[in-house]
Amino acid sequence: MTTARHQPTARQKIVAGAADMISRRGLNATSVRELAKHTRAPLGSTYHYFPDGKAQLATEAVQYAGAKVAEVLRRRIHAGPVAGLRAFLKHWRGVLLESDFRAGCAVLAVAVEEPSGEQNPPPIAAAAAAFEEWQRLLADVLREQGTDPAQAAALSALIVGAVEGAVAMSRASQSIRPFDQVARQLEALITAAVDHPA
Amino acid sequence: MTTARHQPTARQKIVAGAADMISRRGLNATSVRELAKHTRAPLGSTYHYFPDGKAQLATEAVQYAGAKVAEVLRRRIHAGPVAGLRAFLKHWRGVLLESDFRAGCAVLAVAVEEPSGEQNPPPIAAAAAAFEEWQRLLADVLREQGTDPAQAAALSALIVGAVEGAVAMSRASQSIRPFDQVARQLEALITAAVDHPA
Repeated sequence: MTTARHQPTARQKIVAGAADMISRRGLNATSVRELAKHTRAPLGSTYHYFPDGKAQLATEAVQYAGAKVAEVLRRRIHAGPVAGLRAFLKHWRGVLLESDFRAGCAVLAVAVEEPSGEQNPPPIAAAAAAFEEWQRLLADVLREQGTDPAQAAALSALIVGAVEGAVAMSRASQSIRPFDQVARQLEALITAAVDHPA
Repeated sequence: MTTARHQPTARQKIVAGAADMISRRGLNATSVRELAKHTRAPLGSTYHYFPDGKAQLATEAVQYAGAKVAEVLRRRIHAGPVAGLRAFLKHWRGVLLESDFRAGCAVLAVAVEEPSGEQNPPPIAAAAAAFEEWQRLLADVLREQGTDPAQAAALSALIVGAVEGAVAMSRASQSIRPFDQVARQLEALITAAVDHPA
């Protein structure tokens, strides 16, 4: 490969564009044609890179969105659970404000739309894996700081669930208020868990 | 009106069916034709009752879903915040288990799908109103029990956000575990808030 490390390939650009589109409009509304248009890729090259069509592209888009947020967490979590939480919150607050509340989470969007027919489709399995990775990163650092393992796992589920729900609430109300309320509650909770491990 | 009080009208049946369909497949994927099919209503009668088409039906479906959950809260919240929270949790746990993780929340589904073009579309405004009503019901009873008003509002946002997010996480993983983890955390939090008002 002669591609420079930070130069996304045409294929990667399509995946990133699809993740953005899904985070705005959801999965079921989005056709491969629209995804190609949104990423400014020729329709032919989209089918070339993703011969299995929409399910394949959607799965990779969810994996991309999941990995991006995991990277946000990994970059700060070595400094402790509160630093990790703050990085997670800052990321989502940025998504909301920079998109004027038009974008949210591609992982959540895919999780709430059942594709017709199929049981356990790959994009939904990718969404489950993304949620689990974020929870695991948060739970690991909570445990390292002395939180009881079951409590660390449950607190991590609460963080991920509350932030995902709050992003949707802020989008609906076109206001950062619900997100900020939830963010402050979570910060207080995690600070307490670290200060007084169970 | 000669309709008995608990006998839903044809129009109400269409609205309830649309709410169910949206809670499974999301809004953008669902056409008026599919909504009519899902509710077993003739397409003509759907257009007769909802002359403005999909946006009108979706708005009423979200209002219906919001009111149904508000009613679940109202029925138990007089017994206090913990009783209200438990009723809210029981409702969502039932939705997940009874649908084998195929249904979730119609209000959330609409909140995470931007319709193309339009700013502040009626279904999304209805979603914001539903989230706000649930929060207000929870915040009111927390305040009555002595929780500081700002804290009561923030805790209510946390409850609604966390439950909505947890429903999506449980759907993605096809497991009640994330939901139950979040539910127990919220119960502990609300119990503590009531026992030790700020």
